[in-house]
Amino acid sequence: MPRFRMTVEYDGTPYYGWQRQENGPSVQGALEAAVRSLTGESVSIRGAGRTDSGVHAVGQVAHIDLSRDWEPYKLRNALNAHLAMAGEAVAVLDAAAVTEDFDARFSALRRHYLYRIICRKSRLALEHKRAWWVSKDLDHERMHEAAQMLVGRHDFTTFRSVHCQANSPVRTLDRLDVTRNGDLIEIRATAQSFLHNQIRSFAGTLKLAGEGGMTPDDVRAALEARDRKACGPVAPPDGLYFMQVDYPDVIPPRRRPEIEMTEDAD
Amino acid sequence: MPRFRMTVEYDGTPYYGWQRQENGPSVQGALEAAVRSLTGESVSIRGAGRTDSGVHAVGQVAHIDLSRDWEPYKLRNALNAHLAMAGEAVAVLDAAAVTEDFDARFSALRRHYLYRIICRKSRLALEHKRAWWVSKDLDHERMHEAAQMLVGRHDFTTFRSVHCQANSPVRTLDRLDVTRNGDLIEIRATAQSFLHNQIRSFAGTLKLAGEGGMTPDDVRAALEARDRKACGPVAPPDGLYFMQVDYPDVIPPRRRPEIEMTEDAD
Repeated sequence: MPRFRMTVEYDGTPYYGWQRQENGPSVQGALEAAVRSLTGESVSIRGAGRTDSGVHAVGQVAHIDLSRDWEPYKLRNALNAHLAMAGEAVAVLDAAAVTEDFDARFSALRRHYLYRIICRKSRLALEHKRAWWVSKDLDHERMHEAAQMLVGRHDFTTFRSVHCQANSPVRTLDRLDVTRNGDLIEIRATAQSFLHNQIRSFAGTLKLAGEGGMTPDDVRAALEARDRKACGPVAPPDGLYFMQVDYPDVIPPRRRPEIEMTEDAD
Repeated sequence: MPRFRMTVEYDGTPYYGWQRQENGPSVQGALEAAVRSLTGESVSIRGAGRTDSGVHAVGQVAHIDLSRDWEPYKLRNALNAHLAMAGEAVAVLDAAAVTEDFDARFSALRRHYLYRIICRKSRLALEHKRAWWVSKDLDHERMHEAAQMLVGRHDFTTFRSVHCQANSPVRTLDRLDVTRNGDLIEIRATAQSFLHNQIRSFAGTLKLAGEGGMTPDDVRAALEARDRKACGPVAPPDGLYFMQVDYPDVIPPRRRPEIEMTEDAD
């Protein structure tokens, strides 16, 4: 069966998250319904990251197997037309034909996320549900300094949800940068994979550091504690964006799931 | 009575526009209701620009007279709390005490608007209702060249709504710049005041120029025709943002309305 890779953008606000649910709308469900109304097929779409309820995406990647071949741009346009008709807050940015060796989840080399905080006295109107509103000013240089304590290969037990299903709490964090542009603070995180709630746990902890409630050394101690209770309050989903997934230019034959079965949530 | 100037941000999507209406929610109505629930007073709030249904604002300015004095930051915070409770998509960014010579509408020296167009093949998800989606690519340099035909003091009959109530179609357009950043095209317009639908009429006409459907000379001819039928299709409100209003540092005593009674809509 022909396999297609799709890059997907969504406003996470109206969804219970990426993953199909019995009890409410999901991004995966919206895409699968668009395929069903287009081709009549009941397919299962796999995404690179299972984003939580309220989390947005600019560059989620998913793959799908269809019974017949399509011109990729026609598939993209037809799925977008069905998503528009259904009033979904989801768009297929591009589609490409790939070999069966490509797996949106297991072939991923790196995942890139952005967390947006707006520091200002007034509530958000245009950015409501698009950023975390913090009414105190934050010291972004101190946040960046604290973030560097987390970069590298570590046991991230402190920074994962108690509901995280990954076998191991060890991950390699390639990048955790904090920058500022006016009242907008941006946290950019890159890793091959993340634990459940890992980036929102980072954002909540870094916010404490930015307020002066934790020093960079306190953040290092929280990491070393390997204790969920050492984490700052988890930041809301509103500010989190799944930005991009990197894949190798040539996809090797699929690696065996029992080796790579990681939980790439958040 | 103490007078206050407020800078106001809103997502225009849920509103019938700035101006209070019998038949649906308005930004002015939301603010007046917040004042009523805060102080018990039924006040009339005057804005610098009467934005249409669906048009957004980052820096609308309004003034209000209250029966008692307030610390401006407390007034801002209290109004924001009431707006939040009511679930409104409106925020008061700041408040300042001003003399009675200040009038948000008549004291304005210049108004700044931004119109956002996103050119891409796929429908918008995150920017839905926040930009005009155009599926063809547009030549922004040609749009900018065409825009320069409109700068200056002209009879803008071609570019105003047939419902525009201004006495004169003559306005002085200080700036109409078109720039590009990736798939985002931004049109920035500045004038002391605008006619009803003037910027959306510009945007619709410039889009035709960007597609190649009108040359810069055609745009000049459309202006010179002083004929509404020479205007391109009016662009949707989704992409329009009221950005900023400039006032003199010292507000002169209020000018007489019969001289300055202009329609600052759009």
